Amino acid sequence: MEQLARESEGLSISDRRDFLKKGMLAAGAMTATTFAGTAAASKNLPPMEPSWGRQLGAGVVDKPYGQPSAYEKEVVRRTVPWLTAESIASISMTPIQDLKGIITPNGLVFERYHAGVAQIKPEEHRLMIHGLVERPIIFTMEDLMRFPSVSEIKFIECPANGGMEWKGAQMEALQFTHGMLSCCEWTGVPLRVLLEEAGVKPEGKWILAEGADGSHMSRSIPLEKALDDTLVVYAQNGEMLRPEQGYPLRLLNPGWEGNTSIKWLRRLEVGDKPWYHREETSKYTDLMADGRARKFTFVQETNSVITNPCPENPIVKSGLIEIEGMAWSGRGKIKQVDISFDGGVSWVPANLKGLVLDKALTRFSLVTKWDGQPWLLQSRAIDETGYVQPTLGQLREARGTNSIYHKNSIHSWKVEANGGVKNVQIS
Amino acid sequence: MEQLARESEGLSISDRRDFLKKGMLAAGAMTATTFAGTAAASKNLPPMEPSWGRQLGAGVVDKPYGQPSAYEKEVVRRTVPWLTAESIASISMTPIQDLKGIITPNGLVFERYHAGVAQIKPEEHRLMIHGLVERPIIFTMEDLMRFPSVSEIKFIECPANGGMEWKGAQMEALQFTHGMLSCCEWTGVPLRVLLEEAGVKPEGKWILAEGADGSHMSRSIPLEKALDDTLVVYAQNGEMLRPEQGYPLRLLNPGWEGNTSIKWLRRLEVGDKPWYHREETSKYTDLMADGRARKFTFVQETNSVITNPCPENPIVKSGLIEIEGMAWSGRGKIKQVDISFDGGVSWVPANLKGLVLDKALTRFSLVTKWDGQPWLLQSRAIDETGYVQPTLGQLREARGTNSIYHKNSIHSWKVEANGGVKNVQIS
Repeated sequence: MEQLARESEGLSISDRRDFLKKGMLAAGAMTATTFAGTAAASKNLPPMEPSWGRQLGAGVVDKPYGQPSAYEKEVVRRTVPWLTAESIASISMTPIQDLKGIITPNGLVFERYHAGVAQIKPEEHRLMIHGLVERPIIFTMEDLMRFPSVSEIKFIECPANGGMEWKGAQMEALQFTHGMLSCCEWTGVPLRVLLEEAGVKPEGKWILAEGADGSHMSRSIPLEKALDDTLVVYAQNGEMLRPEQGYPLRLLNPGWEGNTSIKWLRRLEVGDKPWYHREETSKYTDLMADGRARKFTFVQETNSVITNPCPENPIVKSGLIEIEGMAWSGRGKIKQVDISFDGGVSWVPANLKGLVLDKALTRFSLVTKWDGQPWLLQSRAIDETGYVQPTLGQLREARGTNSIYHKNSIHSWKVEANGGVKNVQIS
Repeated sequence: MEQLARESEGLSISDRRDFLKKGMLAAGAMTATTFAGTAAASKNLPPMEPSWGRQLGAGVVDKPYGQPSAYEKEVVRRTVPWLTAESIASISMTPIQDLKGIITPNGLVFERYHAGVAQIKPEEHRLMIHGLVERPIIFTMEDLMRFPSVSEIKFIECPANGGMEWKGAQMEALQFTHGMLSCCEWTGVPLRVLLEEAGVKPEGKWILAEGADGSHMSRSIPLEKALDDTLVVYAQNGEMLRPEQGYPLRLLNPGWEGNTSIKWLRRLEVGDKPWYHREETSKYTDLMADGRARKFTFVQETNSVITNPCPENPIVKSGLIEIEGMAWSGRGKIKQVDISFDGGVSWVPANLKGLVLDKALTRFSLVTKWDGQPWLLQSRAIDETGYVQPTLGQLREARGTNSIYHKNSIHSWKVEANGGVKNVQIS
């Protein structure tokens, strides 16, 4: 808050009034008015008390578990029909154009299934740790929840986020260009604590994580990650996992491809090499220009996108505007975000606002003026390791255009004279 | 996480295995087993694949806005019939015994209404700032959402939390002793920014905040707070406010009595003195032993409670246990939490885990052993100002027993030989 206060102080009071007034003038007489500061004006109330001020509302007993307002029914996850024909193996995307702050509410966290949502009875669920361990173990949920817990705010992103754009497809909505992305407070047990219970043998170097759903989705995880920051989690944003997030138990590999954070987690097998299962060979590998494929590309590299304005949030009024967006890095904290108004020719540093956490969404912001001039808006994030988000040209130069995954290049919005925002590709 | 790792390292590996094994032995043969570490044992899978591993689940198109698992239907807000007969003027309490981490999911945030839930059309809602200002203003929601936003994680607590216990009533559930408490990431505009737009006149010292609901609930707020950290918020945990939290707009006075964070906010009037309206005279004042009443007791003083174990979470197994709870202070950050096992005779420092934020719930934790011995469990929080949570005796000594509000004394749980937990009052 202090940071924004300083930003505001950088603008004169007349600038800031301008922010308000121009908007109001443009909106017309019925929407809002800036009065001249007379006592008479202060009595200029709306002529009629709205209905909700003249009646009693529903009482507390009606809603033991609360729901959003009926007026927010358009703020929902959405699927795209061209992605996967089968709903049980498709993906729905978070409406990140509508999100505020860094927490994604549980009802809007993006979904990706390989065999639909498993409906698991928690008392019948088990997690087995076996393979190259001294003491194979089967845990109940009750066992796991007795361990000391940790709670951490981390993003999860599907590596296919933005993947339709590798070859130049134009998604005309932020929800579809970047919506395979969410950020929650996750609660569970560090995997290393559970592995210590089992006792990993010296030859154990990889772990196979497997889900209990019909697909038995599985991924090979290096032991080094498992002993670092991997969690076995049972809660998100304070409550138990949602079914589509793996209720009652999932893996969480912070900063890594979302598919490695196996949902409905039932089995962890320790081995001496990766398993090369389907979802790490035919899928979730990156086909390069020379015909070879990168494999085990776990880390979600530094990325960012401007959420205001965007196709769903056009500029509707001239004057001051807060350019806002989110940045994230699978390697750690965001250190800096720059904004370009001219398609990457020149850059202005944005402010990071609110919490800046390891492997979590981070908000950036820049207050400026718009008076109808065309913009080619871009954001470029830099993380604490010094990694700089690449241009689309740099990414295609390095990886070709065969890939589906790991498109983390600088994203471009074209702001038109009427305030509309288009998705454009700038190399 | 690093902190917990250190905790775990303080216990020997055999201690930690004991944590697991004792629990498993007590749970019986069907629930979980620690194997001896043979290759054969690692093949000892459950005999049958559960139904959810043999079929496809529902697909993504079914649930544009997600809901909790059907197996979590008991995790809901609850009302108590003896509190207020009218549901439209009653309160429902957060199931804090089930919460993890520090974020309360939006569906479980406690509710308190004075005329039920107003159902407000956001495009028709207005916020007026008037009174002792240079430029009275009426804002639309669109106007307000154009301002640079801030997002902050803050608790909100009703000052009546625990109020039934002033005179010795025994609530046999954590949800009813402390459930008028939640913590969310709130997004909105600092009130001082809006007040700068209106231009507060030199004689302006107080602000009346008024709701648009049928009760037109109102409170007088000192200008000093309004210029400090008060926010006008429209979102919680990433999405627009829930109707019962004031959709589309509420005040947020961090750390202060929840009722001052006026919901369905429609009017802010600047004056030179407080208004002494109903909800700051006949209600939300503290009747002292001498018959005088404290007024404008805004701050929610430092408080804490143990959430594991508690009446709803009895100890079901001997062995290692994580004593866990939450602490909070309306004056700033939590600095320290101590735990007593003998009703306050001796104290052991707990660990603060996860984020420690200003005026937010803070988690504390202590790993210890329980082998059937009776405990008189207490937690005592100290905030960064040095304020120490008082005993019940100290609080009654200072305030008498006439009050309903601001009962922040040290809370006591009696752990019985069978692991059951009772609410007891220790002075």
